[in-house]
Formats: sequence, C-alpha cells, structure tokens
Amino acid sequence: MSETHWATARRWVAEALGLSGFVAFSLSAAVLAQLGVLPTLAADALVPGLVILALVYGLSDLSGAHFNPAVTLAFALRGSLPWARVPGYLAAQFLGACGGVWLVSACVPLPKAHELVRPWGAFGLETVCTTLLLVILATAKRKAEVGSQAGLVIAGTLGLCLFTAGSVSTIGVNPTRTLAAALFSGTVLASWPHLLGPFAGGTLATGLTYLLRGPLNQQEAETAKGQAEAGEGSSS
Amino acid sequence: MSETHWATARRWVAEALGLSGFVAFSLSAAVLAQLGVLPTLAADALVPGLVILALVYGLSDLSGAHFNPAVTLAFALRGSLPWARVPGYLAAQFLGACGGVWLVSACVPLPKAHELVRPWGAFGLETVCTTLLLVILATAKRKAEVGSQAGLVIAGTLGLCLFTAGSVSTIGVNPTRTLAAALFSGTVLASWPHLLGPFAGGTLATGLTYLLRGPLNQQEAETAKGQAEAGEGSSS
Amino acid sequence: MSETHWATARRWVAEALGLSGFVAFSLSAAVLAQLGVLPTLAADALVPGLVILALVYGLSDLSGAHFNPAVTLAFALRGSLPWARVPGYLAAQFLGACGGVWLVSACVPLPKAHELVRPWGAFGLETVCTTLLLVILATAKRKAEVGSQAGLVIAGTLGLCLFTAGSVSTIGVNPTRTLAAALFSGTVLASWPHLLGPFAGGTLATGLTYLLRGPLNQQEAETAKGQAEAGEGSSS
Amino acid sequence: MSETHWATARRWVAEALGLSGFVAFSLSAAVLAQLGVLPTLAADALVPGLVILALVYGLSDLSGAHFNPAVTLAFALRGSLPWARVPGYLAAQFLGACGGVWLVSACVPLPKAHELVRPWGAFGLETVCTTLLLVILATAKRKAEVGSQAGLVIAGTLGLCLFTAGSVSTIGVNPTRTLAAALFSGTVLASWPHLLGPFAGGTLATGLTYLLRGPLNQQEAETAKGQAEAGEGSSS
Repeated sequence: MSETHWATARRWVAEALGLSGFVAFSLSAAVLAQLGVLPTLAADALVPGLVILALVYGLSDLSGAHFNPAVTLAFALRGSLPWARVPGYLAAQFLGACGGVWLVSACVPLPKAHELVRPWGAFGLETVCTTLLLVILATAKRKAEVGSQAGLVIAGTLGLCLFTAGSVSTIGVNPTRTLAAALFSGTVLASWPHLLGPFAGGTLATGLTYLLRGPLNQQEAETAKGQAEAGEGSSS
Repeated sequence: MSETHWATARRWVAEALGLSGFVAFSLSAAVLAQLGVLPTLAADALVPGLVILALVYGLSDLSGAHFNPAVTLAFALRGSLPWARVPGYLAAQFLGACGGVWLVSACVPLPKAHELVRPWGAFGLETVCTTLLLVILATAKRKAEVGSQAGLVIAGTLGLCLFTAGSVSTIGVNPTRTLAAALFSGTVLASWPHLLGPFAGGTLATGLTYLLRGPLNQQEAETAKGQAEAGEGSSS
Repeated sequence: MSETHWATARRWVAEALGLSGFVAFSLSAAVLAQLGVLPTLAADALVPGLVILALVYGLSDLSGAHFNPAVTLAFALRGSLPWARVPGYLAAQFLGACGGVWLVSACVPLPKAHELVRPWGAFGLETVCTTLLLVILATAKRKAEVGSQAGLVIAGTLGLCLFTAGSVSTIGVNPTRTLAAALFSGTVLASWPHLLGPFAGGTLATGLTYLLRGPLNQQEAETAKGQAEAGEGSSS
Repeated sequence: MSETHWATARRWVAEALGLSGFVAFSLSAAVLAQLGVLPTLAADALVPGLVILALVYGLSDLSGAHFNPAVTLAFALRGSLPWARVPGYLAAQFLGACGGVWLVSACVPLPKAHELVRPWGAFGLETVCTTLLLVILATAKRKAEVGSQAGLVIAGTLGLCLFTAGSVSTIGVNPTRTLAAALFSGTVLASWPHLLGPFAGGTLATGLTYLLRGPLNQQEAETAKGQAEAGEGSSS
C-alpha cells in the first residue's frame, strides 16, 4: 500500500479502536453500577470522561479523535473534514462500537436503559449536550489544538452532560454508541431521540460556529486539505 | 454591517449564550438536587465548575468570557476593557441569564434559595469569593491567557466558592444570575447581599490588583485597545 | 519608595494575603465539616487543594507563592532564594496565617485537632508529605515554571497528603498554619510534630534534590539573583 | 564517578524512590480503606492517580518516570530505551517496591487481595488496562512530552483502570508492585494473572504502536540515543 493508503487505514483503525474502548469502558461501568459495585453517578459520568481524556490524548494525532458520527458530520458540514473521508469514519466507528458492545455482552448482561423524561425531552437533552460539545470541538479545531489541554475540556464537558442530563435519561451524545447498544438489546426504534438528537445538535452547532466565527480560518483549512497532518506537531 | 459591527454583535451573542448556558445547567442541577436525583454538593459546585470550564474554553476568544457584570465592571475599572463596551456586555448578560432561567422554569419549578447566615454574612461571603475569583482573572488577563489553563483554575475557584460558601448561603458570585432567578421567583429585594456583594468584591479586587501590580502592562493595554483581539492567538 | 522597595512590599503582601486566604478557607471547611454541613474528606483535602491551585496561579508571579516557611527555608538552603529575603517572608506568612485564623475564630469556634497516631508517627507523616511536596516544587523551580500547570500538580499533591495522612492526624504540611491555629487554641507544645516535621522534610528534600540534580541550574540561579523576576514571563 | 555514572545512578535512585513512594501511598490508602477510615474507591483509584501525577511531574526529567517493568520493557521493545539500561531499571524498581511494602508492613498489617473474577478474567483486565496505559505513554514519548500535561492524562488513565477493573480484582497494572506485595504476604503463585497480564498488555501495545505509527520518529530516536536527555527542556 502507498503511504496515503496506510494513513487512511490508520485513521480507520484509530477510530474503531477508540470507539470500542470508549463503549467497552462506559458499558462495563454501567453494568458494575447496576450490580452495586460502583456508585451510579461516578460510573455514568466519571468513567466516560476519563476514558475520553485518555483516548483523545492517545489517538488524536492519528484520526482527530472523533469517535462520534455527529462530530464527523459536523466537521464535514463545516468544511474542516473532506466529505470523501466521512463514509470510512462512520463505518470504522460503527464496527468499533459493535465490537465494544459485543465484548461486554459476552461477559455480562447489558445494562437496561432508564428514562425519566418523555421522548421529545430526551431529544432536546441530546441536542443541547451535543451543541455544547461541538462548540468546544470547533474551538479546538480552529486553534488546531487537539491534545491534553483540549482533551481535558472535552472530557469535562462530556462528564458534565452525562452527570446532569444522564441522570434523567440514557444520554449518549453519540448515535453510534447508542445504535450499537440498541442493536444488541433490540430497542432501536425506541432509541430514536438518542439516535437523532445528536445530529440536530451537530447541525445547530455548525450554524452557530458560522455565525460566531465566519468561514474556516487558515488552520482549519490546512487541516482539511490534509497538509497540517503531515507534521506531527499539528495536533498538540 | 461592517466588520467591526459584526465583531460587536458576536461579542454580545457569545456573552448571552454563555450566561444562558451557565444559568440553565446550574439551575437544572439545583432542581435535580432538590428532587433527590443528584447529590447536593456535586450539583451546586461541580456542575457550575464544569460548565464554566467548557464555556471559557469555547467562547473566550470571542468576548473574553466574562459572563458576569462584576467581571465586566472590574475590567472596565482596571482599564483593560473600554467603558463603551460595558452597556452592551451588561445587556447581553441580562438577556442570556433571563433566557436560561425561563428555559428551566418552563420545564420544572425553580429551586428555593437556602440561607443559613444573616444578610451581612452573605454579603461578606459574596465579596470574598468575588475578590478571589477576580485576582485569578486579573492574572489571566495580564498574561493575555484566557483558555484551557486559566479556564481550569477559574472553574476550580468557582467550584471552591460554591462548595464552601455555597453550603451555607445561595452564593452566586454573579449578580446577573442572581437577579434573573430572583425576578422569576419575586425575591429581588431579599437577594440584595447576592446582588451587591460581587460588586464590592470586584472593586476590592481592582484596588488590590493596582496595589500589587501597578497600572496596566502592555498585554492588558493592547487587549483594551482592541488590537490583540484581531489575531486569534491572543487568547490561548 | 523606590521600585525595589515596592517589589519587596508586594512580595510580603502577596505572601500574607495568600496564607490568610489558605488558612481562612481550609479552617472554615474544617469547621463546616465538624458541623456536618460538608463531607469530612472533601473539606479536609479538596478545599485546601482548590484554594492552593487558585492562589499559586493568582500570586506566584509576585512572591513565588511559597505560603509556607518550610518551602521558604528549603529554597534558601538550596540557594534559589537569597537568605536576606527569608525573614520578611516568614514574618509575612506568620501575620497572614494569624489573620486567617482570627477571621474564622471571630465567626465560629475553631475545629478540634484529631490524632489517631502517636507524636512520632505524626512527625514522620509530616516529614514524608513535605518531602514529596518539595520534590515537586524543586522541579517546578528548576524549570522556572510556577503557574497553572505546576499549580495543578502542587494542589493535587497537597490534596493527596491531606486525604491520606490527614485522615489519621491533623496534618498541616505547613508549620505557620499549624502555629497560628495552635496559638489561638493554646496547644502549641502538643503540636510539636506538626511544627518540626515539615522542616525535617524540607531539609531531606533539599539533600535529595542536590543528590539527584546537583547544584543550581541556570534558571534557578537567575531567579535567585532576581533577574528573572523583572520579566513577567519568568513564572508561567 | 564520571558524569555518565552519576546520570545512571540518578536514574536508578529516581526509579527506586518513585516506585517506593507509589507503593507506600497506594498500600497505605488500601489499608486505611479496609480499616474504614477512607472510602474504598477513592483510596483505590484517587490516591494512586494523585501520587503518580506528583511523581511523573517531579521525577520524569531524571529517569523518564517508568516506575513499572512493563513500561520499561515496552519502551525497550519499541527501541526508545536502550536494552542495556533495562536490568538497572528493573532492579531499581524491584528494590523500591520492596522498600515501600516493607515501610507499610512495619506499621500496619497489609491489606488482603480481593478477586470477584476468575484468574483468566483478571489476566484479561490487566492486559487491557496496560495496553491503554501504554498507548498514552507511547504518544507522550513520541512527542517527547512527559510532564504535567502527559502526567495528568497518565494519572487519569491509571485512576480509571483502578476504579473500574480494580473494583472487581486486585488490579496493579504493575508487576513489580504486585510482586513486592505478594512476596511479603506469600501469595506469589496465586498472583500470576497480575504478574503476567501487564507484560502481555505491553507487548500488545508495542505492536499496536508499530501498526499505527510505524518505526521510531526523530524525537523518540534522539531520546533513545540519550542526546535529548542532556538538555533539560527535553521532557517538559
């Protein structure tokens, strides 16, 4: 394979590995919480926050550390990721998420979803949380900074969303994570607020970013053209 | 609109969005705590800390991420923000805070204020907490550094104040947040310590900053003249 | 006063303010914990950690943010602080700590000390904790880096010591803080392990630093000569 | 001794001191948790996380802050640490760990191991956790960045592993730590999953790093040749 093909394959492997790790850790923690081994809120908010901190730091120089189709589509809509890369990212994320769910379900029964709000309320919560997360990510992308500093803020924001909105609904802020878990437990249709809400949030956040910052700046455009990725210093 | 008008409008939108997000998340968490869904101290200290970490990182390059009239006035008094920008900031903050309170009050009853100390005690606590917060902000402004690093310290300081002082009084460290919540629940007069205390703290901190550091340094002055804001690297 | 006298006075004010803030927050939290308002471990470890994070970030460009006679003496022994500055630092720290204790004792009764270990055990714990803290500080000084990044590690280390050793003894890692509290409650003699342990730890850490790193490097020596302090970028 | 011999001796002292500190703090916390003085999960996850944050920051410029034979061997396998240094590192780590265990066992009875999973399950958990940790460390090494930023992510990842996997098994993510504790309590054979799992994880992570990033980059190679260690700025 040529150098470019290797780089593409590595991006896919990084996205798949990242999402499988994220799903495996957060699902395991939810199972342990339902068994009474871990405190519920720490399992639901702290564990996903810490695992995303680790994965963003460890893998962001390879694939940008999306691990989320709502993020991938929002970056493509913004123009900072070429559309040609979108299908590969989405497929890698889906395979990774299924792998993570399969690994957990092979060991223990999957945790049950909990909903204290109506479907449209859950849709609204997913939308608000994804919008907040993508405002952060747009800032990080604009500064061409995806590493330990941005990772800490991303992890904190995800933990915040799962701690607050996640206490009344099975918030995922991630349609692929939700889809993979729903496929294994046969609840795809009932999960529509969690499958569609993040895309609504992603679209909203992209519009807001255009309103607040205008078109791509130089760093975003260079990243999009794939130049900045040649040097490793591009994502610090 | 000219480029300058756009920049002004974006500043206002960023301040309004930031304060509405801050108010919506922290009020929701307080409601969830009173319903027994979230632990009280985590809802009152961790949630505001994490949301301010996210918002400072995501929006500080647009408006400086004040989200607080006591901060805006202290910066104007210091000379690092032109007085002409103050009314717009205050109005945007007020509209944003009202939007946040309205959003929460449309879904659930607002949480009740709790006071274990007398009014002058609450006034003193607000003053001390705002002074501490503004000493941090003055250092960040002086280094022209408002981003993930300063954001973490700001979030930690806010969380500290809400954890300690907030356990005995409805500390806001933010008059607009307090005013918006008081308007909706009709308790404006009784909230005077929380409305006036932060301004006393802001004035005290500005005097202290002058005593300890003297007049504006170059970075603060450039920011004040609006030059440093042209380049995006100014607030990292 | 000349420029130099101003700089000296500012250093003293920063040390006094810092230690009064540290003592006031951590003592108040201990009182609130004994009243059952705050959880004990969070009050004893999280609050001092967060307040030291804020104070190191906000004041370290003025005085180096010692806030502790064991730190001041260890830096003088190392040669990175001129001995002529030591008396002023110690006096400012003592006055600040007394001010903080007085402020709290004017409002509420001071918390009682708790000891689950014998005096020599407490002495050992203070020694180990101060040694650990000063290894961190020596690294930060060597890199001429005392700001948000070092501050986070310092705050985490202090929180760690207070969480572990502090659960079985009234660990201060700070003789002036201990002395001021003991003077107000008349228990100076009984506090000898907490008054002497940190100095043993400081001496041990200075020897260890010499063993591991040899004499002063260029950054430490420049700071000691007072040159690096002229530019504000010296402590980031 | 020549300059080189001093540097070698300092590396050994740093590794031994670091692992003795890590073992002493984390074992003490486990003992305090079994006595009911500290909450179990905080003792098992927060304390090791905070102590590793402190030690990575304070000692990484001396030895690279491995404190773990699985890390040392993975770096040698990768080529970023000369094989000739491996025996010294392993011996220093072993002596340090024994010192830490001895110190704790001289004061209190050692805590008992707990296992809710079968041996192969524990082996799998150790493998997964070490793989995750070494993906982070490989990124940090590649950027020649081992300091406060990488330290925070490393500490968070270790805390995550001990919080989740550690709630059902006596996870060490560190064979030397496990071996030293097992020698003192006479349970070496029963600890095989925790002794071998981390090496499996280290090998897996090294393969993964080669797959994802190819051979050594310039920074890693320079570090391996020992050149980058001459300047102190090499590990920030």
